[in-house]
Amino acid sequence: MSKAAIIGGGVIGGGWAARFLLNGWDVAVSDPDPQAERKITEVLANARRALPALYDRGLPPEGRLSFVSDIAEAVVGADWVQESIPETLELKHRILPAIQAAAGPQAIIGSSTSGFKPSELNAAGTCAIVAHPFNPVYLLPLVELVGDAATCADAAAILRNIGMYPLTIRKEIDAHIADRLLEAVWREALWLVKDGIATTEEIDESIRMGFGIRWAQMGLFETYRIAGGEAGMAHFMAQFGPALSWPWTKLMDVPEFNEELVDLIASQSDAQSGHMSIRELERLRDDNVVGMIRALRRTNSGAGGVVRTHEASLPDPGERKGLPITATRQVPVSWTDYNGHMNEAHYLEAASQATDRFMELIGADAAYVASGRSYFTVENHLRYLDEVRAGDTLTVTTQVLAGQGKRMHLFHRLWRGPVNLAATVETMLLHTDLSTRRASEPRTPIAEALSNWVARHADMPAEGAGRSVGQRPGGSG
Amino acid sequence: MSKAAIIGGGVIGGGWAARFLLNGWDVAVSDPDPQAERKITEVLANARRALPALYDRGLPPEGRLSFVSDIAEAVVGADWVQESIPETLELKHRILPAIQAAAGPQAIIGSSTSGFKPSELNAAGTCAIVAHPFNPVYLLPLVELVGDAATCADAAAILRNIGMYPLTIRKEIDAHIADRLLEAVWREALWLVKDGIATTEEIDESIRMGFGIRWAQMGLFETYRIAGGEAGMAHFMAQFGPALSWPWTKLMDVPEFNEELVDLIASQSDAQSGHMSIRELERLRDDNVVGMIRALRRTNSGAGGVVRTHEASLPDPGERKGLPITATRQVPVSWTDYNGHMNEAHYLEAASQATDRFMELIGADAAYVASGRSYFTVENHLRYLDEVRAGDTLTVTTQVLAGQGKRMHLFHRLWRGPVNLAATVETMLLHTDLSTRRASEPRTPIAEALSNWVARHADMPAEGAGRSVGQRPGGSG
Repeated sequence: MSKAAIIGGGVIGGGWAARFLLNGWDVAVSDPDPQAERKITEVLANARRALPALYDRGLPPEGRLSFVSDIAEAVVGADWVQESIPETLELKHRILPAIQAAAGPQAIIGSSTSGFKPSELNAAGTCAIVAHPFNPVYLLPLVELVGDAATCADAAAILRNIGMYPLTIRKEIDAHIADRLLEAVWREALWLVKDGIATTEEIDESIRMGFGIRWAQMGLFETYRIAGGEAGMAHFMAQFGPALSWPWTKLMDVPEFNEELVDLIASQSDAQSGHMSIRELERLRDDNVVGMIRALRRTNSGAGGVVRTHEASLPDPGERKGLPITATRQVPVSWTDYNGHMNEAHYLEAASQATDRFMELIGADAAYVASGRSYFTVENHLRYLDEVRAGDTLTVTTQVLAGQGKRMHLFHRLWRGPVNLAATVETMLLHTDLSTRRASEPRTPIAEALSNWVARHADMPAEGAGRSVGQRPGGSG
Repeated sequence: MSKAAIIGGGVIGGGWAARFLLNGWDVAVSDPDPQAERKITEVLANARRALPALYDRGLPPEGRLSFVSDIAEAVVGADWVQESIPETLELKHRILPAIQAAAGPQAIIGSSTSGFKPSELNAAGTCAIVAHPFNPVYLLPLVELVGDAATCADAAAILRNIGMYPLTIRKEIDAHIADRLLEAVWREALWLVKDGIATTEEIDESIRMGFGIRWAQMGLFETYRIAGGEAGMAHFMAQFGPALSWPWTKLMDVPEFNEELVDLIASQSDAQSGHMSIRELERLRDDNVVGMIRALRRTNSGAGGVVRTHEASLPDPGERKGLPITATRQVPVSWTDYNGHMNEAHYLEAASQATDRFMELIGADAAYVASGRSYFTVENHLRYLDEVRAGDTLTVTTQVLAGQGKRMHLFHRLWRGPVNLAATVETMLLHTDLSTRRASEPRTPIAEALSNWVARHADMPAEGAGRSVGQRPGGSG
């Protein structure tokens, strides 16, 4: 079992704690704030709701969370120590040596600093690296790594294991990369509000209704490459390069930070978002982020690709009641409907994933499909026995009712939690030649593997199979 | 029938043409480029694949597209004229008066300019407004409107009708709003590449793995409001305000635009994205954008909310073969799977939407659900009869097999195109009290409405209903 020490338990520290815990690490948190435990518990509640919803497979069992008052006690035995204390160098120069004194030589010491360079952080002789994450840390994969190359390489491997995307930066620089881009936008946006060109809400709409959607899946340069069209990037540059010398930003100048500006921004922000609490905004953000990252899974793009790579490394779920577990997952909010429970179609989505997994078990896997053969579903019969809600753990077992020649007849059971049978899905599939789109005999190894499963499941009961809609148990419909 | 004239048929003009056409407008395009027709046809192919996929309902029939050499001929009778010619004032001062001379007095003349102010555009006495869209114009809702208030208000109403999000800007300013933010990021990013801090690919990853995902659904200020936590926006400002005076950007200075910089960016961009053609990149972008906007529909956020509002205004689909059409849509790419056809679960998703619509038809609508009553599905039997592919039009009709007391027994037929029966879905539902989660009698008006449908459908055949999985027509299973 690996251990992480989280020094500083605010929104960022809490996000780190959640990211490690939900990936099976033990986590010790140290923060002098008497509210730290409450705050971390709230972040953790959000994370438990959102992070597993990205995955079509269960995450490992959660690690153990502890709160300790002493930094040394938190740090002892830790493989990773993450410093997320307030952003002043004086404080960091006090805390980082205390961490280093208590940490083992193998421990990676990361700092969440958004602005300081490693050379500044380590002025007191410590050997921390910058590991700068993005809020919400439990959902967004990016971590900027800056510092000693060997330490950054070790850190990158660990971050990948907890589903993150380490970006190692070539040279240290104030504010790393992403926050430089953010700072440029922030300064420009403050000018726009100060000059009365747009309100905070209008600026937000100008982002999320347009380029924000582009940037969530490709970044700046790949987007502009497309804008350049067939003529390419050099053409784009030639077209828009001259704008560099035009007065298209006020950034030659910096807005004065004073009470008037703070009041202006804060009051516009209240008008824009004040009808929702921060907790409500967080949940809305998390639902949106989960939905969008799930959408990016399909093309393996950006954060969607990170989730899929991570998912493939998760442990195999094993068996239940003598049947293979062919799917296990937490139910995402996006799978629920106006009745407050999982929508009927997602029972079939889970069963369809179970069918895919069972096909893998008999060798009809991606390579087999790529060779031009597959199974097509010709019929499904679903019986809904229990409601399933967002956050519930859904486990699917698969039993083979028959499998000879072209036909494969499966019976999936969907379990809510450990004991409640939520649905059965009886599925008939036909082996199909993908070039003719017609039913065909499976290749011998697949037919044999299927036969073995048929034999293994031959005497098992399948209560509810073989019925028509509305037919009562034992009845004739 | 409304008519739009598109003057200048590049990527942006083509996007406008597609947006109008797919919303039922006739479109005349004028561009001296002999390649214009080919280019617009390509943009249109992308748009036909992507825009309808945002909607769970069919768009109106496409308008008629024509190419004319003469500006006056294109403009005559147009309700909207959109100028998307190259970005030089001299050219715009030549073309805009020609447009205005040929256009009727009611025509709105919009310019796609990303940089010029209306006062600059209209220096020659024209009355154009800025209507600045974002690529891909057929998917991203944002249009920045700048200029005469009454014209902008009329323009906004039209843009909402074609599913866009008009943002009217309070004061004219170089580059409007969004491009000022983009220009700030662009300048900072060029410095990062020029100084060897990061490559174009690393900068793109720093965006799309982190803040890009945040910005696609909330913007800058709402995101920072959350970061401020319970203490609010003023707290966030207090925390990060001081950074305004720190060297967190190089924007006090502008990178020199020279051949060396162009080569550096272009070669890094080739290394990053050169393995894909621009067409492939466009399709990848569109699939991602469609998937993410569809994800935002659920919470009604940003572009997802725009689509839902627009969808609610689309015409009702009517009847087929004496049965109500309860769903009609184009099949999005995201509904297909590794077999190259619509995944089995989405047949049920379409049928589930049809059930929702039929519930509305008997009065069991959102208000009824809000009053604490609903129908829960207890069984589904799906027969897959034909493959369905991305881009196909799917139409669902609903027949009532029975409906008495708590039970409602429906039979959905899913049609691919006008004549191919792709699937049947037999559904049994129970009326449910949402507080006890138990079966209950429906309210009288709902029971009566359902009875009327039962009587109307009493003598209709329902080939394939009442069977168990694997049972042949007429057979006993």
